[in-house]
Amino acid sequence: MENIFTDEYFMKKALQEAEAAYEKGEIPVGALIVVNDRIIARSHNLTEMLNDVTAHAEMQSITAAANFLGGKYLKGCTLYVTLEPCQMCAGALYWSQVSRVVYGAGDNQRGFTAMGGKLHPKTEVKSGVLENEAASLVLRFFEERRGRKY
Amino acid sequence: MENIFTDEYFMKKALQEAEAAYEKGEIPVGALIVVNDRIIARSHNLTEMLNDVTAHAEMQSITAAANFLGGKYLKGCTLYVTLEPCQMCAGALYWSQVSRVVYGAGDNQRGFTAMGGKLHPKTEVKSGVLENEAASLVLRFFEERRGRKY
Repeated sequence: MENIFTDEYFMKKALQEAEAAYEKGEIPVGALIVVNDRIIARSHNLTEMLNDVTAHAEMQSITAAANFLGGKYLKGCTLYVTLEPCQMCAGALYWSQVSRVVYGAGDNQRGFTAMGGKLHPKTEVKSGVLENEAASLVLRFFEERRGRKY
Repeated sequence: MENIFTDEYFMKKALQEAEAAYEKGEIPVGALIVVNDRIIARSHNLTEMLNDVTAHAEMQSITAAANFLGGKYLKGCTLYVTLEPCQMCAGALYWSQVSRVVYGAGDNQRGFTAMGGKLHPKTEVKSGVLENEAASLVLRFFEERRGRKY
């Protein structure tokens, strides 16, 4: 039987989180953390609502997953996020020693690869999963904020 | 009259926070945020107690200061921290656009300069303030954890 729990499956759930952020007027990024095909944390960007630059989707999911697991290391876990993590989130993922990071769209401006940040050497990275969906949501957000297409 | 509110003055307060972390069995790092010579946030590392890799001293102070100010940007603020920020904390400081970062001891292993992270281009950085006090506290912590001098 075909395994339905693909990276695309979980990224669709992360995109739902990004859409929830969009509805709240937040830059639309969603994240979740999965262990053994089970979602143990899900979150979306809340920097505006919480007035807190640290409230990125990934940071919230890292805290929530560690709380669920009862330990701060996320070995065996996969973090899904719709947009490439920034250096802050890459740094948090580094400390967590998460096993896999799967992201959608790249971020040439503020992504950790552009900014020079590092994930843990044991962390496997996969990018480009449903990247068009993730990127178009972010583009739509900024287009509407600026009141024009560009 | 001499201004008592020097960088050393505030770093001593941050060292008190680091000592509080030490007493709790946490890697001893303390931080505070100052605006117009007033301390608006103070914190120490709580990663063990909270089971959360994101609970670095700087992260807590950034969240607390934004909460105090009612806005997420820390323009006009100075963050004092006893140890050089890691890439996660540098990333959070980047987003906050904090005006100054003053740290004590450098961290050749996990500091943001070694890891390749970046502060905001508008952020002024000063290092080495009471660095011996800050470094010796961290060294003492690891010596005691390992049960031996080295």
